[in-house]
Amino acid sequence: MMNVNKYTKGYFMPPTVDMSWTQKEYVDKAPTWCSVDLRDGNQSLIIPMSLEEKIEFYKRLVEIGFKEIEVGFPAASETEFEFLRTLVEQDLIPDDVTVQVLTQAREHIIKRTFEALKGVKNAIVHVYNSTSVAQRQQVFRKSKEEIKQIAIDGAKLLKDLTEQAGANYRFEYSPESFTGTEPEFALEVCNAVLDVWQPTSDRKAIINLPATVQMSMPHVYASQIAYISQNLKYRENVVLSLHPHNDRGTGVADSEMGLLAGADRIEGTLFGNGERTGNADIITIAMNMFALGVDPKLDFSNMPEIIEMYERVTRMHVYERQPYAGKLVFAAFSGSHQDAIAKGMKWREENDEPHWTVPYLLIDPQDVGRQYDADVIRINSQSGKGGVAYVMEQKYGLNMPKKMREDFGYCVKGVSDHKHKELMPEEIYQIFQDNYVNVEEPYKLIDFVLNKQADGTFKGNVHLMEHGHEVVVETQGNGRFDAASNAIQKEFGIKYDNLIYSEHAMEIGATSRAMAYVGITAENGKTYWGAGMDTDIITASIKALISAVNRMD
Amino acid sequence: MMNVNKYTKGYFMPPTVDMSWTQKEYVDKAPTWCSVDLRDGNQSLIIPMSLEEKIEFYKRLVEIGFKEIEVGFPAASETEFEFLRTLVEQDLIPDDVTVQVLTQAREHIIKRTFEALKGVKNAIVHVYNSTSVAQRQQVFRKSKEEIKQIAIDGAKLLKDLTEQAGANYRFEYSPESFTGTEPEFALEVCNAVLDVWQPTSDRKAIINLPATVQMSMPHVYASQIAYISQNLKYRENVVLSLHPHNDRGTGVADSEMGLLAGADRIEGTLFGNGERTGNADIITIAMNMFALGVDPKLDFSNMPEIIEMYERVTRMHVYERQPYAGKLVFAAFSGSHQDAIAKGMKWREENDEPHWTVPYLLIDPQDVGRQYDADVIRINSQSGKGGVAYVMEQKYGLNMPKKMREDFGYCVKGVSDHKHKELMPEEIYQIFQDNYVNVEEPYKLIDFVLNKQADGTFKGNVHLMEHGHEVVVETQGNGRFDAASNAIQKEFGIKYDNLIYSEHAMEIGATSRAMAYVGITAENGKTYWGAGMDTDIITASIKALISAVNRMD
Repeated sequence: MMNVNKYTKGYFMPPTVDMSWTQKEYVDKAPTWCSVDLRDGNQSLIIPMSLEEKIEFYKRLVEIGFKEIEVGFPAASETEFEFLRTLVEQDLIPDDVTVQVLTQAREHIIKRTFEALKGVKNAIVHVYNSTSVAQRQQVFRKSKEEIKQIAIDGAKLLKDLTEQAGANYRFEYSPESFTGTEPEFALEVCNAVLDVWQPTSDRKAIINLPATVQMSMPHVYASQIAYISQNLKYRENVVLSLHPHNDRGTGVADSEMGLLAGADRIEGTLFGNGERTGNADIITIAMNMFALGVDPKLDFSNMPEIIEMYERVTRMHVYERQPYAGKLVFAAFSGSHQDAIAKGMKWREENDEPHWTVPYLLIDPQDVGRQYDADVIRINSQSGKGGVAYVMEQKYGLNMPKKMREDFGYCVKGVSDHKHKELMPEEIYQIFQDNYVNVEEPYKLIDFVLNKQADGTFKGNVHLMEHGHEVVVETQGNGRFDAASNAIQKEFGIKYDNLIYSEHAMEIGATSRAMAYVGITAENGKTYWGAGMDTDIITASIKALISAVNRMD
Repeated sequence: MMNVNKYTKGYFMPPTVDMSWTQKEYVDKAPTWCSVDLRDGNQSLIIPMSLEEKIEFYKRLVEIGFKEIEVGFPAASETEFEFLRTLVEQDLIPDDVTVQVLTQAREHIIKRTFEALKGVKNAIVHVYNSTSVAQRQQVFRKSKEEIKQIAIDGAKLLKDLTEQAGANYRFEYSPESFTGTEPEFALEVCNAVLDVWQPTSDRKAIINLPATVQMSMPHVYASQIAYISQNLKYRENVVLSLHPHNDRGTGVADSEMGLLAGADRIEGTLFGNGERTGNADIITIAMNMFALGVDPKLDFSNMPEIIEMYERVTRMHVYERQPYAGKLVFAAFSGSHQDAIAKGMKWREENDEPHWTVPYLLIDPQDVGRQYDADVIRINSQSGKGGVAYVMEQKYGLNMPKKMREDFGYCVKGVSDHKHKELMPEEIYQIFQDNYVNVEEPYKLIDFVLNKQADGTFKGNVHLMEHGHEVVVETQGNGRFDAASNAIQKEFGIKYDNLIYSEHAMEIGATSRAMAYVGITAENGKTYWGAGMDTDIITASIKALISAVNRMD
């Protein structure tokens, strides 16, 4: 058993708790996004990225639309130094993109960082120190005053060396382990740093509040953010940034609520990669805005390509149920869901609905480069008839009568149950072909000659095989189909009624063949279905009838 | 580019918005947990579970401590029927466990469901119908009144047939697609159902509010829950249940905030398996409570076994960053994190701290069956010296001097950078052995005879190999080690000072050997480190010195 007495709350409420941000329903404006994929994301990989891999990732971030990208700790290793130099030397930093670098507040490290930045137009230099109770007590064994002094000294050194270098880098400060820090103390430290930096409207400072380890519910984190936001000095010249992790599985909620509570900026990663449970997942946060009609200013229409690149260079796997991105997130296996989606899509077409309201799909999968037929309606042994019919209609242009869909649904379910596996559209199509189309045992159509008579009826003969023997049957009827049906009933002593019939051209596929569907009700009350495919319309329908007859028990 | 104009908000605010639940900081009491792994979870698998797999999963759910388990839709297929019958016939339902079954409100389906339930002591029969605007409009094409009538008719039929059967099943009703329904209408339908059922304190009804598709931020969902909770009839005889999904990546936040807002029960799954992005992840919600010192009444101390079973029978993979469970969620690759964890662990031991406060680890990994050495401190090319030293100390009992840790850290980083891969503890140990321990080229100790003199000094000779040639050096010193050091300096013309020395028994491992560490500073100012291992203490230290000498450039 797990011992719960070992745990207690490790976070601190702010002195004034303001939850008025809950009056806002959602994030109505894109924050400044800062990707930390190449730093937090990279350092948490079992195999960190190579230089080439980092460059590929970086280019994709620029393409997606990130305007701030943390590129690492250039003074920490040759690889990181070289990466930034490559960006500069290969001219890979557009004018509207700012690169962000982390540095420790030590003179030779800051100087080395500045060397790495030479030639960069826009840069943010990011310093931090841990301020939490646990780190003060256990790691640094220092008082609050001493910890605050570390921050002030670092801020001063950074400012002085930047002035000496004649640079105009912007500055960012993080009270690391913010979520384990008393909010009043975090505020005091941040304000002390801002007093050093004296931010202005044309050179704003960034104060970044990391949920280094998530310790509280998201509304508590948001109340901490609200408190800092409302009490920060130089507030109008400060960009308030969040850097949530995901230990409690609420990184997205922390980010969204923190934005409602006053923050302006989010540091996070694609797919929430990062230390332990990962960083805030920028894709989900951005797409959540998008799904509510707010432009996130990031473009994920190429999601499959983004996933391919991400999985290759990080050697991580995008989880199947990852919002907006995972392989299964648009999949409907349940029959009732499939049915509702099919009806919703139909309604959408019929009504020219301007807004996306299809049941069970938060967004149109096509907006992130996914396809209905491959990704949405999927058939396992739990699926129902709705999905099967939808797949056949979307992918093969088969538009079966409603009752036939049910019959075919049970047939497919039987196969899936028996095979104990998911069925792909082509397998389902094959089941349809094998079981319903042009069934030729015991009866098979060879030919027919049926001509219109003066009285409007049709007369002639139908040439059939019966258990391998040829038979020519003379017959008549109101139409060719009726005449053929009469021939079968008369010659073979088969009785049925309630004949249901429909036919359509095969719109999708190579040829102009016709597909006919026939349902007949036998004396036992059961309805049997058959299909016929032929380049000739009437031949297709007679074949469908014979298929149905052949499927009677 | 993605077209944002296609989207608008699809949810509805309640007529009165009450956010007073935000005054509570966290969930302070375990809700009733209902696992829907065998239904929602199962139906969303590419390959649904077999009968045997379902039984294994079910048994594990009972072991974990679930008291309510949804076992499926017994009237929907032979497999589901047979599963419930097997539970009954093999006596697998403990007296304190209630099985929950879904049914459609049609007479023959309800009757078949009751057949499946024969012999079950405690059962919940769950009926639902879709109430959302989109489903009313697009799928059912019915008015509000008609949709409400479906719910009432279903509730009546269920009640009547239960009375006829002489059973005392409890009832659950879900306004499916609740999050796309006007809260007032959902309330009206739920109250109409409750009017039929007339719940009592000894036979409470369950009203379950699914976030079938997540459409809003969690605080909006919570405000909808608060509204329903405060306006539900027979409230004291109703268990208010939540059934969140995860389309917006906020299933955990929805669940937690919904509980604060008045709900009593959570339907969810292990690892958040389920349709599309999945259901609410009960493991995370429960462990979030645990991490704040609240007993969740579920036991996940066997997490590795739970994961093994889950991955095998669902054929899904637990995501590496899945909170509390994923392979990487306790991993610290970063040097500063490793250092803080090592210091935190040391502080914890020294101070006998009753509560878990170790930096960068929300909970003690051992509480969910994970190990420090394998799962926490991991070494990639981004790692620093702290982690390497910690791993060597924890796993091999090597306690190097502080400065030597740094030296060894750079050595390991070089190898990791070069090999471009994660290094396992045994590989790191091997790097240590290969580079530091008993280095024998160019100098190797063969033997020594050093005896104490009357004046307290030691005299004798040291027998060495130099580039393959034997040398016997006469020497003296204040101790045996000092004498050996003098021999080396004198004989080979090597100069060093600032000798640092430490030694300890190898506490971990097979033998009682000693490990000695020696640091020497050469004339060029550089410090060189060596280690010696031997069953004899003094031999180990002389070997360490020679190793250090051999490592000089």
